[in-house]
Amino acid sequence: MRMVDLIAKKRDGGELSTAEIQFLVNGYTDGSIPDYQMSAWAMAVFFRGMTARETADLTMAMAGSGEQLDLSGLPGVKVDKHSTGGVGDKTTLVVAPLVAAAGIPVAKMSGRGLGYSGGTIDKLESFQGFQVERSREQFMQQVRELGVAVIGQSGNLTPADKKLYALRDVTATVEAIPLIASSIMSKKIAAGADAILLDVKVGKGAFMKNLEEAERLARAMVDIGKQVGRKTVAVISDMNQPLGFAVGNSLEVQEAIHTLAGKGPADLTRLVLEIGARMLVLGELVPDVEAGRARLEELIASGKAVDKLAAMVEAQGGDRQAVYDPGRLPQARLSHPLTASTAGFLSEIDAEAVGRASVVLGAGRMTKEMPIDLAVGIVLHKKQGDAVQAGETVATLYANQEAALQAALQELEGAFSVASHQPEPTTLIYRIVE
Amino acid sequence: MRMVDLIAKKRDGGELSTAEIQFLVNGYTDGSIPDYQMSAWAMAVFFRGMTARETADLTMAMAGSGEQLDLSGLPGVKVDKHSTGGVGDKTTLVVAPLVAAAGIPVAKMSGRGLGYSGGTIDKLESFQGFQVERSREQFMQQVRELGVAVIGQSGNLTPADKKLYALRDVTATVEAIPLIASSIMSKKIAAGADAILLDVKVGKGAFMKNLEEAERLARAMVDIGKQVGRKTVAVISDMNQPLGFAVGNSLEVQEAIHTLAGKGPADLTRLVLEIGARMLVLGELVPDVEAGRARLEELIASGKAVDKLAAMVEAQGGDRQAVYDPGRLPQARLSHPLTASTAGFLSEIDAEAVGRASVVLGAGRMTKEMPIDLAVGIVLHKKQGDAVQAGETVATLYANQEAALQAALQELEGAFSVASHQPEPTTLIYRIVE
Repeated sequence: MRMVDLIAKKRDGGELSTAEIQFLVNGYTDGSIPDYQMSAWAMAVFFRGMTARETADLTMAMAGSGEQLDLSGLPGVKVDKHSTGGVGDKTTLVVAPLVAAAGIPVAKMSGRGLGYSGGTIDKLESFQGFQVERSREQFMQQVRELGVAVIGQSGNLTPADKKLYALRDVTATVEAIPLIASSIMSKKIAAGADAILLDVKVGKGAFMKNLEEAERLARAMVDIGKQVGRKTVAVISDMNQPLGFAVGNSLEVQEAIHTLAGKGPADLTRLVLEIGARMLVLGELVPDVEAGRARLEELIASGKAVDKLAAMVEAQGGDRQAVYDPGRLPQARLSHPLTASTAGFLSEIDAEAVGRASVVLGAGRMTKEMPIDLAVGIVLHKKQGDAVQAGETVATLYANQEAALQAALQELEGAFSVASHQPEPTTLIYRIVE
Repeated sequence: MRMVDLIAKKRDGGELSTAEIQFLVNGYTDGSIPDYQMSAWAMAVFFRGMTARETADLTMAMAGSGEQLDLSGLPGVKVDKHSTGGVGDKTTLVVAPLVAAAGIPVAKMSGRGLGYSGGTIDKLESFQGFQVERSREQFMQQVRELGVAVIGQSGNLTPADKKLYALRDVTATVEAIPLIASSIMSKKIAAGADAILLDVKVGKGAFMKNLEEAERLARAMVDIGKQVGRKTVAVISDMNQPLGFAVGNSLEVQEAIHTLAGKGPADLTRLVLEIGARMLVLGELVPDVEAGRARLEELIASGKAVDKLAAMVEAQGGDRQAVYDPGRLPQARLSHPLTASTAGFLSEIDAEAVGRASVVLGAGRMTKEMPIDLAVGIVLHKKQGDAVQAGETVATLYANQEAALQAALQELEGAFSVASHQPEPTTLIYRIVE
């Protein structure tokens, strides 16, 4: 088998066999297939696509390219959750303890963030002392005893995906649906998931800018799940405006705590219940989504959800008191209000601009090496559709440096649009793909 | 400027600017742009194509990527000739001395062949003592004094093209018309051509298998010529059956000599006159193709054409006597007739099969390191459309090894098809693109 023939086959619209895809992934992982052949193939995939079978084969070959987590020792259906990422997306911080409180074992490896804010792991480090590095044994034991652990990625999981992703990033081949889909799914499968809940974000602040693309990606991932025997459901949710009010690490942790305590923003609460309920269905704990939502609402109302977060924080060495007293989380030195210049209705809050401003403040990183400031960020006071008065505060910026604050204010220029009459109501959840 | 952005621009159907193409070629030549980005870009070009302006910019950037031959010291219009290659294509051996005899200065650098037979340089080495390596000064002096020199490629001409061609070969991106066109044209321009005559071969024994593709390639090259101020004309000629009768190095030299003496095969003679006459027009020696053809026919009839070849062979240290006594050229030890099994008309002579058989005999090389045997090859006795009797010899194989002879006979199985009624006449010259 020669890689040049596989590139030509894909270039001419052919379908690679399972053996051919295995050859390609093995060869790329062990270095016998060079980057320059892989990038030409990836560009051919951009133009020609891949069949569902090919995409599933690529997923499984990448999942098998390195170490794989064996969660079979844990009881129950292991349901993992993945978001394609967006501004103010603290869903995992809420969902993980929430579904764990309901009885879904959550053994989650999570990444540090690249982009508009930190990843789940960065955010959890807002709890003083919180340990994200655990041995495989500690990790499994915590899930067994407590039902939930969220740690940083460790071990040599999906090296083929890591290598291919880095290559796609510099060869303009990121935007190929089958490659995005197999990248995400291979990581979830290598991390031991039996079933997968996907939160596919769409809109200004997301990678997928329109619903059609988002649906294609969701469909591709759900199809992979079907092909490889992992029940997979995708929720397509809005990312035109930030999710909830808070953008920034400790600010998002505070909002997650509020949400677990039943006092969170309406949109975040609704999304968390939708995602959590569907995870309970995937985990075979409830017969349908309605029953799942009711179960989760009970756990929130009874305080068990927030207690589960506190227990997880404590188990991983963090300051559990901060769950009940968010003043103990990192606080920024400076704050500054952003006000509306005219009265009317907020017709748009540009999630991308808010994301960029949060990076400028120091809440996110653009390269792996950049340090992030857990305290800084932006808290919205209004969301799209809300009425505002001239001079009313629509958001507060939290910063530790005056220069960063000024630069962030510049980034936010034009990010909040005010219209004279009330706009159409926004949509939070566009579609469920299953 | 970032290469990843240029790849994305081409991927999305955009047109790169002159500065962007210069950046790309410079960066690839100096190694700052890696192979994996170049191959992704080449694949994007395969799908999106390039505009005439982009293709011309790429050509000039590659032509300027290394040393360039300065022929401005020679009088007259320097007209170069290039063939896309085929089986039995000895056109340059005839055309170079022929147009030189008419007064076109021929300062030709030619390659060794890869594929069905040797290149022009290999073939010329059939003359004992013939020197293909000459200093730049010797080369120019010979052209000044004699009007013609054909030597091997020397110096660092078009390094960008060499590097890109090697990359395309292993990334399934050879088959992109703008890349083929700019590769050929960049080499001709770096070699100092003022005007260019292209012989684009089409058919079973050529890289371009159908007329539409051949026309696209011819049009792309003629367009480059227009854009960069080099008058360019393309002749699209047939390569379904071999050109002339002889395939193999010294066998082709003998046929070239016969043709220069007015006793060559009809198809080769016709093609050589067409190409040569158009070169005289490009060189502004005659007002039109008819006048050019008449001039060349005179030179053949008077013996001046064949004398010019003898003078060139002598000037480069070769055995000039062999031009008048071809028995002095390398002769094979073994010969074997190939006979028709039934009577009828030859409906097809598969050029590709004949080419493969000649390689098996040792006349061509598949890798740069392979030695070639100048004496061996195949001589046809019939061409398509000719009547044959059962048992009549249709071709003779010349070999130096019995095993190679047997293997070549196997390759030729089915290469000669006999039909019961006379087939449509074949076409030699399909189109002139200018």
